[in-house]
Amino acid sequence: MRTLIDRIGQLLVVPAGPVRGPDMDRVPVLRDAALVIEGERIAWFGERADTPGGEYEHRIDAQGGAVLPGFVDCHTHLVFAGAREGEFVQRIRGKSYIEILEAGGGIHVTVEAVRAASEEQLLAGALARLRRMLALGTTTAEVKSGYGLRPEDELKMLRVARRLRGMQAVELVGTYLAAHTIPKEYAGRADEYLDAMLADSILETLYSGDLAEFADVFCERGAFDLAQAERFLTECGRHGLRAKLHADQITNTGATKLGVRLGAVSVDHLEEADESAIAALAGSETIPVLLPGCTYFLNGKPPAARRMIEAGLPVALATDCNPGSSMIESMPLIISIACTRLRMTPMEAIVAATANAAAAIGRANRIGAIAVGHQADLLILDRPSADFIAYETGRNPVRMVIKRGRAAWTA
Amino acid sequence: MRTLIDRIGQLLVVPAGPVRGPDMDRVPVLRDAALVIEGERIAWFGERADTPGGEYEHRIDAQGGAVLPGFVDCHTHLVFAGAREGEFVQRIRGKSYIEILEAGGGIHVTVEAVRAASEEQLLAGALARLRRMLALGTTTAEVKSGYGLRPEDELKMLRVARRLRGMQAVELVGTYLAAHTIPKEYAGRADEYLDAMLADSILETLYSGDLAEFADVFCERGAFDLAQAERFLTECGRHGLRAKLHADQITNTGATKLGVRLGAVSVDHLEEADESAIAALAGSETIPVLLPGCTYFLNGKPPAARRMIEAGLPVALATDCNPGSSMIESMPLIISIACTRLRMTPMEAIVAATANAAAAIGRANRIGAIAVGHQADLLILDRPSADFIAYETGRNPVRMVIKRGRAAWTA
Repeated sequence: MRTLIDRIGQLLVVPAGPVRGPDMDRVPVLRDAALVIEGERIAWFGERADTPGGEYEHRIDAQGGAVLPGFVDCHTHLVFAGAREGEFVQRIRGKSYIEILEAGGGIHVTVEAVRAASEEQLLAGALARLRRMLALGTTTAEVKSGYGLRPEDELKMLRVARRLRGMQAVELVGTYLAAHTIPKEYAGRADEYLDAMLADSILETLYSGDLAEFADVFCERGAFDLAQAERFLTECGRHGLRAKLHADQITNTGATKLGVRLGAVSVDHLEEADESAIAALAGSETIPVLLPGCTYFLNGKPPAARRMIEAGLPVALATDCNPGSSMIESMPLIISIACTRLRMTPMEAIVAATANAAAAIGRANRIGAIAVGHQADLLILDRPSADFIAYETGRNPVRMVIKRGRAAWTA
Repeated sequence: MRTLIDRIGQLLVVPAGPVRGPDMDRVPVLRDAALVIEGERIAWFGERADTPGGEYEHRIDAQGGAVLPGFVDCHTHLVFAGAREGEFVQRIRGKSYIEILEAGGGIHVTVEAVRAASEEQLLAGALARLRRMLALGTTTAEVKSGYGLRPEDELKMLRVARRLRGMQAVELVGTYLAAHTIPKEYAGRADEYLDAMLADSILETLYSGDLAEFADVFCERGAFDLAQAERFLTECGRHGLRAKLHADQITNTGATKLGVRLGAVSVDHLEEADESAIAALAGSETIPVLLPGCTYFLNGKPPAARRMIEAGLPVALATDCNPGSSMIESMPLIISIACTRLRMTPMEAIVAATANAAAAIGRANRIGAIAVGHQADLLILDRPSADFIAYETGRNPVRMVIKRGRAAWTA
């Protein structure tokens, strides 16, 4: 099947990630462009005048709108049950995240809800979220476990994500986040908890069952320390799961440097990452994933995005969609917050949300770019410039979403 | 015509505005409720078990969703032409709003675009915006002139707003903002400019032609000073236009106190309003309208909402929808920003966006409340609590919008 996307007002030729530092703002832009899809892949792009001849089974008129790669939401907790709107209100009334957690609220509320939920219930909730996310331009999303905290419930979450792959258009990537927090029944016994969650039988099921590609740990005071994080990720790594870390979010624990030392694919959050953490990342292949939704939602300190870009890092962005600290599904809104709060330019934010986010889930050679041979995951906007994604805050600028060469959503 | 809204999970019984200070957080909530509409008005509401019998021509099943008054967006510049996404990017690169203005950018770009636009072009742009705003729950909006800055172009903007009243469901209220900025051709001659814009013929046309109910002035260094603001508002007042002010936004000019002294209906912005301004408001009928979109968009200082609520003020909220400093159409997003950045509770923000916003446009006795005899402008949410408006950031929680007793939009 051969499809022509014609009359593209602005084609953002985002290169394959990782795109580092100042290069994030130097993406070539073609005006009055066209793009050819063959099967699932980009076969050609260039100026309209040079459009290859021949037969096209489908022609899509971009009507002068901007075209860019589909968004890659590389850090989400989108399989969950329940809601925590009450906690959101308590926080506004002055309670801290830690106070709410210590009062038995916070993540434990979601853990109980997820344990109580059937696979079908989790599936229905996540499916509705994915439908909305697709309409907002997300064509690939990472999905973490981490609200089960028991072998059967962690596997349940990841089975839901696997089932969702065949049910809707958003490509999903599983991450085993058993080390999200210490469940109540293991209070004070983090190592024993990890023993239970690192059983060979679980790790083999994850990898061979195509349930997870990554392992992730919340390395933070009150959760898992550096030694526990290293042990968890190393054990998972022996079973083929590549490392990710929730790092330096609330306190500077040194988790970013641990991630670099372990060759982690990404370190995520980094609100409290210091210059030494940035220096460690600069000499590595590890992707720093920033989550501006948390900055917005918790009214917290933004991560030092500008400093990281100056240091040459390939910054990535994601929603961190979760019921506690970032109840945001929209990549356009995340891009907007990255611009207003983290002072990234719209182009930097778009590269962070596409090419670099793809690198953060080990897919930079296939998605997140406008490149011949890359998967045709594309967004056609109803505006002539991609700057409108950030500028028209809260409005969905997406007119059409193309996934693997096919129209997956239209306005 | 008699309509029953049944199976309301949570009915927010917002009283008629102004609702002052701590009362904003003390709105009665009825669970398992119903509401009866007769014609355009609310005829009854209460517990489901007490629903009046008799014939209903229409029955709407709220499916357990929350019901609240439609949003009143009491400060917008939604009739405009062009876009200023480039300026948004320049600002991220470090240029200040004032630097952009002085380089010939900023508001002057919009003024040129509006002067060049036909009435039909302005109408088409505003109509598209209003369609999106209605879907997000806005049932009434104020619309300012202020991008024409010539008699014929100021009148053109307000004629567009008047024509839009008959073309779509959102109720529109016109405000004459000729004193928005000094047009280039009058540089250094602000008083002469005001002479031209205060001609009797214009002011009579505004009032008798039903083009404007309010007059507004941007009282700020580089725009109009206190004496000019007073003169403009007093002259307009003689022709029936009630006073509003853009006050204490960038610098503390004393405009809030001027507004109180003049008996203004509202003073808007207030990012730099100090304790003496708050004290002046506390003894007045003037409504403080806060515009969190500017805080978000310009990454600026939030107005002291908590302090104002403690001082007993009836705080209102609006989008300030405009292409320069708040390109936001969504009242749900404004409510969310008011919660995360201004630390208002969702209930306070909802009261500010309904009852108090209605008071800010002189309509508190007819809209913005759940009260028998009030106009039936209602939102039915797809969530059981109105807290979700703020909590699920960037998602539209509105399932149905009812305007004057009729379904105006459904998801």
